[in-house]
Amino acid sequence: MDIVFVTSNKNKVREARMILNGSGIRLKVVPEELDEMQSLDVKAVAADKARRAYDMTKMRIIVEDTGFFLECWNGFPGALAKHMQTTIGNKGIVALVSKNNRNAYSETAVAYCDGHTTKLFSGRVAGSISEEARGTEGFGWDFIFIPKGESRTFAELGMAEKNRLSARAVAFRKLRDYLTR
Amino acid sequence: MDIVFVTSNKNKVREARMILNGSGIRLKVVPEELDEMQSLDVKAVAADKARRAYDMTKMRIIVEDTGFFLECWNGFPGALAKHMQTTIGNKGIVALVSKNNRNAYSETAVAYCDGHTTKLFSGRVAGSISEEARGTEGFGWDFIFIPKGESRTFAELGMAEKNRLSARAVAFRKLRDYLTR
Repeated sequence: MDIVFVTSNKNKVREARMILNGSGIRLKVVPEELDEMQSLDVKAVAADKARRAYDMTKMRIIVEDTGFFLECWNGFPGALAKHMQTTIGNKGIVALVSKNNRNAYSETAVAYCDGHTTKLFSGRVAGSISEEARGTEGFGWDFIFIPKGESRTFAELGMAEKNRLSARAVAFRKLRDYLTR
Repeated sequence: MDIVFVTSNKNKVREARMILNGSGIRLKVVPEELDEMQSLDVKAVAADKARRAYDMTKMRIIVEDTGFFLECWNGFPGALAKHMQTTIGNKGIVALVSKNNRNAYSETAVAYCDGHTTKLFSGRVAGSISEEARGTEGFGWDFIFIPKGESRTFAELGMAEKNRLSARAVAFRKLRDYLTR
């Protein structure tokens, strides 16, 4: 089955394809950067984008949104993490996070819309923010996010291992189970 | 002349009315909290909101957006400041800002839309972030923003003085000049 993934992020496409590999779901990509609403909530952002992605394409689409949520900052930056990462940088973020509480979780929401129904699939992974950026294989905040039970960042673990553990993997596996049920 | 200000923020209404006092412009309020797009750019956020505010009301409307931009964070949080302020709080922000460079500016964009034309009016005021929250008269980050040339925060200066100096005042005075030209 073909589904259109509306995203301008090639790294997300690569990960999603690896996660869905063998499921019979083929992702076609519309490389459009959709506006996103201001919210810390990745589910709200994804659901809002899904409506607009469907209106634009009139095809069966998915969109996704991912953020990380710091315990020491009451959940900030959440879905706004991208903007923090692109301005302050990973180096800036690791320096700002409290030395006493570096706990965080990452959350992904995948929204599916076929014009009749919109469905949300989310995944969450607990972890912490590293004390410095580490690793070579990844994008965004992979260099500073350590999933719970590991000592290495996602960028040190590499994509195959990340795709076993990440919030994105959990959410896309739920999508796969829904579409192939 | 009557104009509809679409905003859920009563403090902004109060300030705007004081700034426009004597101009002959009367603000009617539609207290709707419109979605805002994710961007650091207050002009982009205001222009986007203006289209939707007009579509909703079909009346001559204004909307506004204000943010503050930290030099030590390459402009973050900008238009996303509200989310940082409501999660981390002013106390959290003052603790995070670099001790060596607390320079910031505040920017307001007012967007006017009458269905035919959309106009943007912006104001910017240089300043810095205080080392602790101070003052009693204000809202949002008035307690931590010190306009250049002053030693007191907007919340210490009070609303009358703030309305002489603020980015909101500059932007609303440009709107007034446009509408009463």
